[in-house]
Parts: sequence; C-alpha cells; structure tokens
Amino acid sequence: MKNFPGTPGTWTGLILRMAQCLFAAGSIASMATTTSFFNYTAFCYLIASMGLQVIWSCGLALMDAYSLLRKKVLHSPALVSLFLVGDWVTATLSLAASSSSAGITVLYFGDLGVCGLGEECTRYQMAVALAFLGWISIAISSLIMFWLLAAG
Amino acid sequence: MKNFPGTPGTWTGLILRMAQCLFAAGSIASMATTTSFFNYTAFCYLIASMGLQVIWSCGLALMDAYSLLRKKVLHSPALVSLFLVGDWVTATLSLAASSSSAGITVLYFGDLGVCGLGEECTRYQMAVALAFLGWISIAISSLIMFWLLAAG
Repeated sequence: MKNFPGTPGTWTGLILRMAQCLFAAGSIASMATTTSFFNYTAFCYLIASMGLQVIWSCGLALMDAYSLLRKKVLHSPALVSLFLVGDWVTATLSLAASSSSAGITVLYFGDLGVCGLGEECTRYQMAVALAFLGWISIAISSLIMFWLLAAG
Repeated sequence: MKNFPGTPGTWTGLILRMAQCLFAAGSIASMATTTSFFNYTAFCYLIASMGLQVIWSCGLALMDAYSLLRKKVLHSPALVSLFLVGDWVTATLSLAASSSSAGITVLYFGDLGVCGLGEECTRYQMAVALAFLGWISIAISSLIMFWLLAAG
C-alpha cells in the first residue's frame, strides 16, 4: 500500500509538486504584474501565501528529484508527518488566500459590475484561478500524505 | 487511545458540536439581519455554508447526546470515516466562505475606508468573526476524527 502514485520519491509525486509550484508561480506572476494589487490586502496576502507555496513545493520537488536519482525511499514516519503538517498548513493558507481574493474579484466583476474585461481585471481573475488550481494540487498531496501515514 | 476528549459520544465532543452549531447560527443571525447582504455573492455564500454547518453540527450534537444517554460508543470505523469526511468537507467550505467574506470586509473597512463603525458594518465583522470561530471549532473536530481513525 506504500507505493501508490503521488507518494514522495515517485515520478507522479514529482509531477504533482512541480504542478503546485508552477500554479503558485503563475498566480504570483499574474497578480504582481497588475498595477494596483498593493491597494488590496487580500491580493497582497495571496502573493504572500503563493510565495510560501512556491518555496515549500519547489523544496519538496527537489527532494523528490534527488530521491529518484539516488533511488532512496522517503517513507519514514517522521518525514511523512513533516510533509503532512507542511502540506496541510500550506493548503489551508492557500485556500484562505484564494477564497478572499475570489471574494473581491466576484464583488468587482459580478456584484458591482465596475470591472470590465480589461487587461487588469483579467489578470486578477487569472491569478485567482491559478491559486485555486494550486490549492487543488496541494490538497491532493495532503490527502496522499494522510493516506500514507495512516497506511504506515 | 480511543477515549480522549472530543471524540463522538463524550461530553467534550457534545460541547464542541454545540459550539460549532452556536457560532454558525450566530454568524447567520448577524449576517441575515443586515439590510444589504444579498447584494454580495460572498455574504450569501457565507450564509449557505454556515447553514450547512448548523445542520451537520446539530445533527452530530443530537447523536452525541443520544449516545451519552444510552451509553453507546460511536467508534466504529465506518461511522468515524463518515464523520471525518463530513467534517473535512464542512470545514473546507466554512474556511472558504469566511475567507471570502473577510476579504470583502477588510476591503471595505481597511483598504477603501468607506465603511465606518455603523451598525451594518459591525454586523458584517461580527458575522465573519463568528464564522472563523465556527471554522476553528470544526477544524478541531476534524483533527480529532482523523486521530481517532488513525489510532483505530
């Protein structure tokens, strides 16, 4: 039960970590290239939270790559517990950040209707969408870690 | 390891469920008594999500009370798995709802400064604060269920 796809030190695990990293980096890039994100607390929080996700996921992607190259298995309970706690904390922060940014984006697009389909607004939407994709991929990782710890 | 505080069918578990129920009901009451919440998608979503939490937590509180009265133990793996999935889904929805509402509240209070300390605005803040307290209490329940399932 310990070698299913997505566990640390497998190709699927590496791809999942790289996807998290890319979605978070894309979200930061999309948000940081707008001219007025710093006026909104939620958007600044989104950048901070996605920054944390980039650091965490890239670090684990490097560890996965190292373990694939050296053919080491990273399934010790202490390591998996560390991954689990880190994944859950990052996933919770990502969900909170993307929800609060989504709240503001929906307010401007749908409720108030003051934001058209201009370049700025599309970038906000893109950043929120990428943040949600990043959250989904890190939530999958968290569930895999939870399963791995429970099965161990 | 199976009779620690907060598990289903204990007094602390019952108190935790009642706290979840009360926080969520308080959040709904505080939000629904404002005159303009229906103009904001995030606030409507907060009410829907807190409504789900009221139904779920009150149902489990009744089950806890029944199990305390009849001295039955509710620790079968199937039941605990059901509680775990329900708790995680409710906690995720609550976190998303309270974050998106908090994003809008912070936008109006802090970033734009258009919302003073009037009655309406205080109610929005109160609803968001109660929703976060509700999320914290249901997150504690989820962790207890996870621990119970892992220890079983």
